[in-house]
Amino acid sequence: MSYVGVGVSPGNVPVKHNNNSNIERRVRVAEVVLRCVICGLAILSAALIGTDTQVKEIFTIQKKAKFTDMKALVFLVIANGLAAAYSLVQVLRCVLISMMIRGNNNNNNNNNNALLFNKPLAWAIFSGDQIMAYLTLAAVGAAAQSAVLAKFGETELQWMKICNMYGKFCNQVGEGIASGVLVSLSMMVLSPISAFTLFRLYGHNNNNNKGRW
Amino acid sequence: MSYVGVGVSPGNVPVKHNNNSNIERRVRVAEVVLRCVICGLAILSAALIGTDTQVKEIFTIQKKAKFTDMKALVFLVIANGLAAAYSLVQVLRCVLISMMIRGNNNNNNNNNNALLFNKPLAWAIFSGDQIMAYLTLAAVGAAAQSAVLAKFGETELQWMKICNMYGKFCNQVGEGIASGVLVSLSMMVLSPISAFTLFRLYGHNNNNNKGRW
Repeated sequence: MSYVGVGVSPGNVPVKHNNNSNIERRVRVAEVVLRCVICGLAILSAALIGTDTQVKEIFTIQKKAKFTDMKALVFLVIANGLAAAYSLVQVLRCVLISMMIRGNNNNNNNNNNALLFNKPLAWAIFSGDQIMAYLTLAAVGAAAQSAVLAKFGETELQWMKICNMYGKFCNQVGEGIASGVLVSLSMMVLSPISAFTLFRLYGHNNNNNKGRW
Repeated sequence: MSYVGVGVSPGNVPVKHNNNSNIERRVRVAEVVLRCVICGLAILSAALIGTDTQVKEIFTIQKKAKFTDMKALVFLVIANGLAAAYSLVQVLRCVLISMMIRGNNNNNNNNNNALLFNKPLAWAIFSGDQIMAYLTLAAVGAAAQSAVLAKFGETELQWMKICNMYGKFCNQVGEGIASGVLVSLSMMVLSPISAFTLFRLYGHNNNNNKGRW
């Protein structure tokens, strides 16, 4: 029985060099890559929006646009900050467990099993991933709605568009929201991976299975 | 081997009256109940928002507020309509498969297994549930953001609050959004159920499992 290094999650089944080993390896690699991508993009999104300002002079009066003028952008910056911190912790967890397994390998398989088949830990990771996926999506949804209003206005409600006045500000916010959308999409792809990791612990192989996947 | 009637999903494992039978029965019942709740609440939410209008007379000019004035509310009505239709189809699927299994029961267990362990169908249900969960959440997030703007305005952007003018309209929209939030929360609870149903098909029982759950 062998274990592949970085990216082994608690709850993952051990690599048995059987028919499932390829899919298991791919799942582990995908998990670590996605968590790194999420961490980077979330930091980028929060930085783009959080540092965005533009000053306009209107009849000798200076007006400054900043992200705190729109509560939805504040929510998005907070959500992306949480997503980045969470993903960093998860990547460290993957590396740490991988190191512990390497240390235990060939010495004590019971310790490895305790790490790899730990249902409470797998539940915690699954719950965390779900919460972060929903949090980032809700934040992106709210921010995108605000951005649409800023770009096009809502004439029926007399909410005027502001992007013709603060073009540079709006463009940078747009880039931040685009990064936020990618964070959210990556979280959506990651979420089934941790579900797979958790719920297969409750399963059993069925030889009568008619599905091909 | 016996099968409990309504609520049996393709991908669920059969009830074997073993240690897992209780959790399996609960999962099936929870699935059907949640799908019915989602269907009812989504219809309620779409109806509350879609039928909401208020006419105000301002200096002999009549102004009418309707949900199409806010694009986020149109998105929410469409998302709730899709969620209601999808949930109805899923409830019918549960009932239909339950009837087919009852018809096959004690006659041909291979047919039952083909229904219960159908991975492609379990993948389709899981994907559908995920998409609906994310769709309803994004719609609720955008609509909630618009509602906050309508209620409190955004003075920095000179977007004035409109709920002091259209109080009855805003209250009904608020009720519709509250129902939409419940739809979204129910979808979030349902999503791990279909993940459980799917991914346990890929699992195997591990006797060395140290987790207690």
